[in-house]
Amino acid sequence: MTMTMRRCVGGSSISPRSCRRVVVPSVFLVSLCVLGFLLNVFGQENRHERAFGGGSGTTSPATGVPRCGQDRGRPTQGCAWNVSTAERADLIQDKFTMTISTFHRPKELGRVLDTVLSDKLPSLFEVVVVWNNFGETPPPDFTSDHGVPVRYRTPAHDSLNEKLRPDPGYRTAAILLSDDDVFYRPSDLEFVFQIWREFGQDRLVGALARCISSGRAGDRHADARGSWEYNFCTPSSSWGGGDGDGETYSMVLTNLAFTHVSFLDHYFSDAGPAVRMRQVVDDAFNCEDIAFNYMVSYLTGRGPLLVRGRDQYVNMDPPAGISRNKGHLEARGQCLNDFAQILGCMPLVDVKGRMERGFKHNVWYKSVWDLMTL
Amino acid sequence: MTMTMRRCVGGSSISPRSCRRVVVPSVFLVSLCVLGFLLNVFGQENRHERAFGGGSGTTSPATGVPRCGQDRGRPTQGCAWNVSTAERADLIQDKFTMTISTFHRPKELGRVLDTVLSDKLPSLFEVVVVWNNFGETPPPDFTSDHGVPVRYRTPAHDSLNEKLRPDPGYRTAAILLSDDDVFYRPSDLEFVFQIWREFGQDRLVGALARCISSGRAGDRHADARGSWEYNFCTPSSSWGGGDGDGETYSMVLTNLAFTHVSFLDHYFSDAGPAVRMRQVVDDAFNCEDIAFNYMVSYLTGRGPLLVRGRDQYVNMDPPAGISRNKGHLEARGQCLNDFAQILGCMPLVDVKGRMERGFKHNVWYKSVWDLMTL
Repeated sequence: MTMTMRRCVGGSSISPRSCRRVVVPSVFLVSLCVLGFLLNVFGQENRHERAFGGGSGTTSPATGVPRCGQDRGRPTQGCAWNVSTAERADLIQDKFTMTISTFHRPKELGRVLDTVLSDKLPSLFEVVVVWNNFGETPPPDFTSDHGVPVRYRTPAHDSLNEKLRPDPGYRTAAILLSDDDVFYRPSDLEFVFQIWREFGQDRLVGALARCISSGRAGDRHADARGSWEYNFCTPSSSWGGGDGDGETYSMVLTNLAFTHVSFLDHYFSDAGPAVRMRQVVDDAFNCEDIAFNYMVSYLTGRGPLLVRGRDQYVNMDPPAGISRNKGHLEARGQCLNDFAQILGCMPLVDVKGRMERGFKHNVWYKSVWDLMTL
Repeated sequence: MTMTMRRCVGGSSISPRSCRRVVVPSVFLVSLCVLGFLLNVFGQENRHERAFGGGSGTTSPATGVPRCGQDRGRPTQGCAWNVSTAERADLIQDKFTMTISTFHRPKELGRVLDTVLSDKLPSLFEVVVVWNNFGETPPPDFTSDHGVPVRYRTPAHDSLNEKLRPDPGYRTAAILLSDDDVFYRPSDLEFVFQIWREFGQDRLVGALARCISSGRAGDRHADARGSWEYNFCTPSSSWGGGDGDGETYSMVLTNLAFTHVSFLDHYFSDAGPAVRMRQVVDDAFNCEDIAFNYMVSYLTGRGPLLVRGRDQYVNMDPPAGISRNKGHLEARGQCLNDFAQILGCMPLVDVKGRMERGFKHNVWYKSVWDLMTL
């Protein structure tokens, strides 16, 4: 083949068919390379929110709020949270509950349920569907072929906070928060849960990272003055206090993230900041995931943990959803600053590492394969 | 370009020069793809030990030793270690000491020192060179341009254990164990240290993973009977109790790994198993890294953590070294079983996740670039 290739390159007179046999696969491979490159440059996970976002969520509150320090504005690190986990020690520690929030997307919900219930997932204890299809009666509860109970819960209010309610029926310490349009593949789900157990019980551990940046681009000390913007973790984005290489993230979305149930307890507590943050979420009909990230980092002083499985998670990217509303990003930028005002400081912590499955690098053609098998 | 490419493929009569302009870059890209693929399939990190290893380290002791259980053979998880870290609480917690073990490789040692001392590494407190060049006077101690002290320590004995001695002069809790022929690039070193602080103080956190497998290939329950083999984490290798997909590792080599100094205290303690394991290391003149991995996992019930930086670590792969001796792998297989006999069970824990830098997948052409810039 090398000789034939050389003759094609040299333009010598071998038959067009022989030449085609060599060059066509080459062109195919080059295309794969270019596709792999593009996938890596532009990513896939942002498409959902980016679609109708209309730019970054710039906002300029009258008074900026700087980052929380070790001693300023933050409770003694980890203490409040440690107390509350001790109160939940009676829960099952080695299994998890999957909570799926759904809103009029029966096809997508069906696919998520089919996927997670089709295989035997040793650690999946229960599935709870938060039924936001108000006016529709939910299906009856059932038990999967592998013995996993599935129950539907209709919230008392039409509120995004309801997904984060500490359901009194929960029997596991670990809750996988998810939406009806995104899921880890089953074998990866088990892996991510084990990573949560080993490394992340005091963090949010999830699939989709999000970033914030300080309002004054290029000013490395701008975060000390505190005007915050929401972004998709693009290479140019970083903390004001970061090293500017765009490697850090500071949130994971709650459409696919493990949390300890104790954080739900705190989120739904009567503490003043929690009440006010839930009110902001209801007023904006947005930002419950940002509020939850704030609360976790405020309590623990830790950032989230991004985990990727062997395969890319599946994002069905349906055409309807809050994140496709015009002005979505601006609203989220406003939330960043409102929540920081409520807490008295910006609690999010920048994180530079992500957990990957196995001991070898993923390779570019995996991304192509993932895309083809979505 | 697309039109021209099509004409080349179709064999039509455009000039050889035009054809060459199109196809040569394509061939170059294809070559890069293939190279990237080969790099991923065969990896780079194994070449050192594999070179003259002579196959996997099969050994069949008369009596096999099964894995440690939660309650069998292992001290109450983490307790002994927690006590000893409390005893070391006076040490500096947010900086690290780099301990480089050298053996007659001045060129390689010089390169490691130049690299880690050339940049300002905010967290590097001190460098200690363990001078195994017996008969040669070490150079005088010095302080780098960035104010990092470098001191040479000549061990009292010619023993591989000496690298793991808890030097009374250590002033940091974190010790980066390294050899004179391998290093993380400076910016990655800072990243790996921060990962150790956040996720790995009760683990070994390093660059090169190694695996074990039970002696009866294909028998998923063979580990319960316990005859152990050493391997390079090839796709076909896995724990007897693993899922057979070759994703797990259970050790990191101590030629580039962070440890808490408390583990060094335990390794050099007068406890019976520690004394006997050090004796095995001296008798075999090998396996100090295996012994250390055993001890850490025995004390904590946790496996190691593999961390990769933005760039591949540098392995200078010099032509002389213990790991190039004939029979090296067999000797290491024997150590696996000897240490398990000493402890009464196999303490190593399988790990499925590795930490990577940043929030985006590494891409295949990074591997090519790393290779070109070694």
